[in-house]
Amino acid sequence: MTSPFTDRLANAARTMEDVLASLFDESRRDDRPERLTAAMRHAVLAGGKRLRPFLVIETARLFGIEGRAVLYAAAAIELIHCYSLVHDDLPSMDDDDLRRGQPTVHRAFDEATAILVGDALQTLAFRLLGNPDSGLTPDVALELVALLAQASGGEGMVGGQMLDLAAEGRFSETGQPLDLAEGDIAQLQAMKTGALIRCAVEMGARLGKADANERQALTDYGTALGQAFQIADDLLDAEADALTVGKATGKDAARGKATLVGLWGVERARAHLADLIACADAALAPFGERAALLRETAVFVGNRRN
Amino acid sequence: MTSPFTDRLANAARTMEDVLASLFDESRRDDRPERLTAAMRHAVLAGGKRLRPFLVIETARLFGIEGRAVLYAAAAIELIHCYSLVHDDLPSMDDDDLRRGQPTVHRAFDEATAILVGDALQTLAFRLLGNPDSGLTPDVALELVALLAQASGGEGMVGGQMLDLAAEGRFSETGQPLDLAEGDIAQLQAMKTGALIRCAVEMGARLGKADANERQALTDYGTALGQAFQIADDLLDAEADALTVGKATGKDAARGKATLVGLWGVERARAHLADLIACADAALAPFGERAALLRETAVFVGNRRN
Repeated sequence: MTSPFTDRLANAARTMEDVLASLFDESRRDDRPERLTAAMRHAVLAGGKRLRPFLVIETARLFGIEGRAVLYAAAAIELIHCYSLVHDDLPSMDDDDLRRGQPTVHRAFDEATAILVGDALQTLAFRLLGNPDSGLTPDVALELVALLAQASGGEGMVGGQMLDLAAEGRFSETGQPLDLAEGDIAQLQAMKTGALIRCAVEMGARLGKADANERQALTDYGTALGQAFQIADDLLDAEADALTVGKATGKDAARGKATLVGLWGVERARAHLADLIACADAALAPFGERAALLRETAVFVGNRRN
Repeated sequence: MTSPFTDRLANAARTMEDVLASLFDESRRDDRPERLTAAMRHAVLAGGKRLRPFLVIETARLFGIEGRAVLYAAAAIELIHCYSLVHDDLPSMDDDDLRRGQPTVHRAFDEATAILVGDALQTLAFRLLGNPDSGLTPDVALELVALLAQASGGEGMVGGQMLDLAAEGRFSETGQPLDLAEGDIAQLQAMKTGALIRCAVEMGARLGKADANERQALTDYGTALGQAFQIADDLLDAEADALTVGKATGKDAARGKATLVGLWGVERARAHLADLIACADAALAPFGERAALLRETAVFVGNRRN
């Protein structure tokens, strides 16, 4: 079933797919080794909702801004997201063989290639923002570099993955999962997935030349959205599990992953998710009806089924 | 034995050590997980000549430019270099247990931590360039982002590591080292190590607001210097080996690494190295005596013993 919202989401994903594909176009014949390019394509062009680019695009559009500069920024954050998936899937990390039904990069190629693919995708993200053809003015481009680096490094996404592995007991002598308090789990998730989702909204706000109040409102929106995204993700995992006969725990629980759903149970998690969607909605109040699409995005994120 | 040159090199290394240490200062108490910070310190604060920062600093100084902005740029390129060492040492890559006599990051910590350390160091490099406190103007900072990303990504350093693994036969069915022609080896090395050394010089030139002719001269210098660096490195490996009783081949040869020393033999490689030093020297002609220190750097790089 389509709606204006799902059409817009699908259109943005298609546009992003084209932009991303153009980065690995074989006719470019640059110096990147062929195997590396092939593995980068495998990592990046596997489909997906392209939620982070969508948030960049739609937040900028709230201010009437669209075009090439927005697409460069949107592609940059998606490349960071893709690199993180490749590295998180590695044998020494989450050891996943499949992603979206396809072999992960280290399975389709090999481990060394997967590490280098992740490295090169991260670099490419910053290279896009530094590209003089981006249409970004230097001051905006540099702020986007700062936002993206802050959200994705050791204080954000990478730090969150580190905390996640620690929570699984990976760095403790016993190897037993840690017993994390609510605040610790929230902090872990805010860093691991929340930071990049909020960053997408903040990048859109910067592209739209939002004023300080507008930026704060959008940061609040992005923060709530990031939390909602993670809880919805954890609920999906817990529920997928309930349908799996003969297996008492979901993938997260089996790994000892710390989730708020695990701590609270499904009912309380659902209620909290509804609160977060309301919170995201309320943050958009200053924009009134102009922000209708971002409101729908929050509802979509809370209700998503994949 | 010290000289004005070695003093300058040692001073720059000390300054850089302080700047890098400040990035991991425990009193900063930011959100980076402790274990990640500890492992990042291990990766970055292990000493070394800090050649790339030195090249940034001394090239900028050629134009009378020094201070905070230069140090931010110098630290950024060193972080990229350090991240590449951490990832190159991983079991699935070169599988090294020691670096500068210390356990490599995956040995001192673990493999997942080492991957995340490399990821976070790369991000931190770009974060430094995007930091509004850097003292860099946005247009210069953004050009540095572009230079660093171009030199270190799939078309540069990461692509070179990929070609290096390929040359070892890692991606072929037989696993036999490839028989590379001279041009292929030169290309591999230009990407793997040459690109970042040239980039250091180019970053210094940009910081110094060099004009187009000056930039070209410095790019030529940096290109020759990068080639000289790699041949000197390969000679060191081949010679260290000659001193090792009962072992017929050096570490490079044992791994099937493609080097020009392996292809040409030591004598011809030495002659080529001398040519490259002369080439680097000649490129500096437009700067006359002002470039004395960069000339000495080329001689130093060619003669280094560690």
